[in-house]
Amino acid sequence: MNMLKKDRQFRPLPVPSVDVHGLFGERQDAICDSTAETLLDRCVEAGMVAAIDTSRPSPGIVIPIQSWSGSTQMFWDSDLGKSIETVAYSLYRKANPKLEARVDEIIDMYEKLQDEDGYLNAWFQRVQPGRRWTNLRDHHELYCAGHLIEGAVAYFQATGKRKLLDIMCRYSDYLIRTFGRGEGQLRGYCGHEEVELALVKLARVTGQKKYLDLAKFFVDERGTEPNFFTEEAIRDGRSAEDYHQKTYEYGQAHEPVREQKKVVGHAVRAMYLYSGMADIATEYSDDSLTNALETLWDDLTTKQMYVTGGIGPAASNEGFTDYYDLPNESAYAETCASVGLVFWANRMLGRGPNRRYADIMEQALYNGAMSGLSLDGKTFFYENPLESAGKHHRWVWHHCPCCPPNIARLLASIGSYMYGVAEDEVAVHLYGEGKARFEIGGTGVVLTQQTRYPWNGAIHIDIAPEKPARFAVSLRIPEWADGSTLKVNGEPVEIASIEVDGYARIEREWKSGDHVDLDIPLAPRTLFANPLVRQDAGRAALMRGPLVYCVEATDNGPGLNGIRLDGKLANARTSEIVELGDAVALDIPVVRETENWGATLYRTTPPAAKEATARFVPYHLWDNRAPGEMLVWIRSEK
Amino acid sequence: MNMLKKDRQFRPLPVPSVDVHGLFGERQDAICDSTAETLLDRCVEAGMVAAIDTSRPSPGIVIPIQSWSGSTQMFWDSDLGKSIETVAYSLYRKANPKLEARVDEIIDMYEKLQDEDGYLNAWFQRVQPGRRWTNLRDHHELYCAGHLIEGAVAYFQATGKRKLLDIMCRYSDYLIRTFGRGEGQLRGYCGHEEVELALVKLARVTGQKKYLDLAKFFVDERGTEPNFFTEEAIRDGRSAEDYHQKTYEYGQAHEPVREQKKVVGHAVRAMYLYSGMADIATEYSDDSLTNALETLWDDLTTKQMYVTGGIGPAASNEGFTDYYDLPNESAYAETCASVGLVFWANRMLGRGPNRRYADIMEQALYNGAMSGLSLDGKTFFYENPLESAGKHHRWVWHHCPCCPPNIARLLASIGSYMYGVAEDEVAVHLYGEGKARFEIGGTGVVLTQQTRYPWNGAIHIDIAPEKPARFAVSLRIPEWADGSTLKVNGEPVEIASIEVDGYARIEREWKSGDHVDLDIPLAPRTLFANPLVRQDAGRAALMRGPLVYCVEATDNGPGLNGIRLDGKLANARTSEIVELGDAVALDIPVVRETENWGATLYRTTPPAAKEATARFVPYHLWDNRAPGEMLVWIRSEK
Repeated sequence: MNMLKKDRQFRPLPVPSVDVHGLFGERQDAICDSTAETLLDRCVEAGMVAAIDTSRPSPGIVIPIQSWSGSTQMFWDSDLGKSIETVAYSLYRKANPKLEARVDEIIDMYEKLQDEDGYLNAWFQRVQPGRRWTNLRDHHELYCAGHLIEGAVAYFQATGKRKLLDIMCRYSDYLIRTFGRGEGQLRGYCGHEEVELALVKLARVTGQKKYLDLAKFFVDERGTEPNFFTEEAIRDGRSAEDYHQKTYEYGQAHEPVREQKKVVGHAVRAMYLYSGMADIATEYSDDSLTNALETLWDDLTTKQMYVTGGIGPAASNEGFTDYYDLPNESAYAETCASVGLVFWANRMLGRGPNRRYADIMEQALYNGAMSGLSLDGKTFFYENPLESAGKHHRWVWHHCPCCPPNIARLLASIGSYMYGVAEDEVAVHLYGEGKARFEIGGTGVVLTQQTRYPWNGAIHIDIAPEKPARFAVSLRIPEWADGSTLKVNGEPVEIASIEVDGYARIEREWKSGDHVDLDIPLAPRTLFANPLVRQDAGRAALMRGPLVYCVEATDNGPGLNGIRLDGKLANARTSEIVELGDAVALDIPVVRETENWGATLYRTTPPAAKEATARFVPYHLWDNRAPGEMLVWIRSEK
Repeated sequence: MNMLKKDRQFRPLPVPSVDVHGLFGERQDAICDSTAETLLDRCVEAGMVAAIDTSRPSPGIVIPIQSWSGSTQMFWDSDLGKSIETVAYSLYRKANPKLEARVDEIIDMYEKLQDEDGYLNAWFQRVQPGRRWTNLRDHHELYCAGHLIEGAVAYFQATGKRKLLDIMCRYSDYLIRTFGRGEGQLRGYCGHEEVELALVKLARVTGQKKYLDLAKFFVDERGTEPNFFTEEAIRDGRSAEDYHQKTYEYGQAHEPVREQKKVVGHAVRAMYLYSGMADIATEYSDDSLTNALETLWDDLTTKQMYVTGGIGPAASNEGFTDYYDLPNESAYAETCASVGLVFWANRMLGRGPNRRYADIMEQALYNGAMSGLSLDGKTFFYENPLESAGKHHRWVWHHCPCCPPNIARLLASIGSYMYGVAEDEVAVHLYGEGKARFEIGGTGVVLTQQTRYPWNGAIHIDIAPEKPARFAVSLRIPEWADGSTLKVNGEPVEIASIEVDGYARIEREWKSGDHVDLDIPLAPRTLFANPLVRQDAGRAALMRGPLVYCVEATDNGPGLNGIRLDGKLANARTSEIVELGDAVALDIPVVRETENWGATLYRTTPPAAKEATARFVPYHLWDNRAPGEMLVWIRSEK
């Protein structure tokens, strides 16, 4: 059945085509009510808006002092782009004329700022005007363009207003003239990938293949010899050897992308590159890219990924280190990196549904990514450690403010990640209460999910084509979902008999009134890490459905490393926690060291322990109540 | 019996009065044969000697590039001082005219460099001549003086040559004129403590109390209000708030030293301060200092000390963080800090023998400090982690070269730390093959230890006074040494009946031919950490005698976190490892996860395990053979 796979093109639904309720809907409401406005406020306070306002003086270069309002940054355009994108998605869900007017004002400033030739970059027009295209390796120049393109596409789709889209088309046309293999063109690419996937979005919304071709050019050129970053350094009079990150692995430019087998360097850069590669693979049916991506996917997910879907353990390079090096307390695991993993996983579904990608997409989304935004939508995690001694808390902002708008734009557009539609098939990648509208083979279809997933595994799906039509509905059966059952119009169907790449593929003539019931058991399970992960030795993590659980001091008191799981998960009791939006908590029998040990630091007898109960809550919701210790990997007696 | 304690003054023996054999002797041989010369070579290569050579141009300020030869440092005088001190001790043990001539040449340069007023500092005479005494907080100015004084004292004692001693007396006389509470004097002290303990040494060797008084002035002034560092910053036109270490806790100058109750800041600075305070407490019988030190001692040793005697877990401040925060793999635990803890513990014995201090002195010496020097005396650890994934190795040198000469001078002078002598008592703090010569109440005594300690716990001690004399011999009974036995001239003596503060105190008339046999059982024991040390939860460390043991991949293969102790220590077998200088290894039955787990990163079943044997070797000897993983805290099933 795998032959179905590679010749098809599954594309995500536009955000306005999916209504989202349930857990995702609650997060979207928080974004509409708080985060979207917070992002614009912080952009103003940081000076980003003043930086693009040609009626005000150049902000100049301000040395960062680790304060969110204390420095000018050469990547501020990207933060404005992601904030515009978030606001755009929020406007689909909830009209907000005031917020819309603020974005319109920013767009007007960009219109005034844009050069006659189409160039647009606040830093290189206002702060260092002589330095355009002199250091693509370090200067985030095309990266900024990419985020403004993504913002433009989203804002056009949300409001129908073309101004920013036209600005970014003009800029992209300028990029097409500037970059290429022709005489006088730059044969380069950005040190921080992003523009590749943005150009694919621009191509899809405008129908202009030229933007796809530019994206493909950037992907194809990356890492080829002679290396562009070395050449440009020589041209710029810089020493190519004197590179703060030592090797071009940092930006995945150390070898041609199709030859890369190991996930290396800066985690967000890697995810954005692979996302762009996957888009190009889908659009050009490019098997050589897909093959490289499959190798990289295995490398990441079997050797370098936290159980939360967090990636990139080290702060020093915001990225990858050695295989199986996954420290918990010092985990960097940037929110943006897990967001990027969701992007990549989603795009790996472009050539056909496969739970190999969709399971990880769900895992990274619900854990490593969603942890980045507080329940009220007002505070943010940058790093996402799996253990805290009690001092790690969400920020109001960050001097490098990439994460807040990134998790916000992902969650605000999450409907687009739930489904993939091809000519004769719709794939349901993620479950959650809501409604999707799309066309298959010219027939309009409304697909409605009724479910309390991820809190409950019962999913009722109504499929309502405007007229009877033959197509496939593919429902993801997560690898962990042992014992799932399926009924079509009330009739049991054996999942194994219709399973393709982990999806139950129901191909039939669908008519209004048809419905499917999928029941996914959500019994808690313990996970053990490969023994090569030294930091998790002797420990287990608890999952229920797609959610990683943790213990917090606010429920359990301090001393979380004194808790030992003894495998009695069958006796777990569930309860709903009102302060966490009715999230399902698990109360589990454990052994716990509760002795008053006294003043000695070391002694020859171990601490006494006795039976106790520990409360586990979803990891992504930690630090939403009283501050304190947190722990994912619990000591285990098994 | 405690009333014996506070009115007495126990002073260490001069280094030439103690012959050292056994394990310590082997390390001293390596220092004589390799380290002493290596230190001078590296000082030359780094440019330190050129920096004080007035016949050559000023080295200027070279930006550090993390290379031992790549920068000029304002604390280079201290490295020369410590290297001279090491060479001096090596000359006691083994004459070396070539080495001595090289030091004489350096001393001649210092003589030429010294200002007419007595001032002497390579940096502020040659690199920044206008900046003398402008920033005591950051500039290591008195710290450099202290190390040159220590070098001068040792070199005088070793060779009888007074030149450097006279230079440093002139400089110290200048310091007495410069610092004080009088009109026009600086009421300040150094950001990096050291000069205090050095001045005590100078006072003891010259018999001049004025140097003691200056040391006491520095101790008494520290941390008083108005804070000197703030005042000097204002005078110097600097912002006192703009301090890279944020609070004066970094240099223990946040409050008067007698009010300090918590060990904070830079670990080496703290140890040097407390050492100086303890010397002053002994010399002035100052109970207010002793009381403060006892509180600080408890704070350090019951809340902030690795089982190796390593201290200061964090690289960011080279120092202390939160109570019970003792990460193993990222432990900073600088060699210098454990050396400093040995200094402090030794000086806490100045007011009477007490195993509360001597046990920790031995623990820090044999583990956290001695690990800093390779068996061949040629390479060095700066950080001393308790776990390594295989990439931590000894350096040939370090861009901040404080540790190599520090561990070398400690080991080269270790005889001085083994004994303390008062008017009517000799205390044996450390055991080891060798001979000590001293006077008690005017009677010359030779005390000889015959033992293979720390490899074997049988210690035979001959006490030979030149004529019969009444005095006490106090022998430390380590707190861990359950079941120790004692015989005096062959007659068993019950230790408990004569024990004072953890020492067996044998007071009698001693005559030539008297001997004592002390037998300390060295059965291996497991230690568990206070459960508040989250990093050691579910783990145990193995000790035998004073030595912490570890497992290394070279003996056990990789995957050391798959080893689980199950408490069967009674079945431990000992063997001697030739490549480690006949060190005693322990082969212990364990349970080990040996399964070939496969490619999955996470799964629902734990790794399979089976019975095995693991080889443990002394921690301080790790990384002397094939490189690889190392682990101290082993998973424990108890």
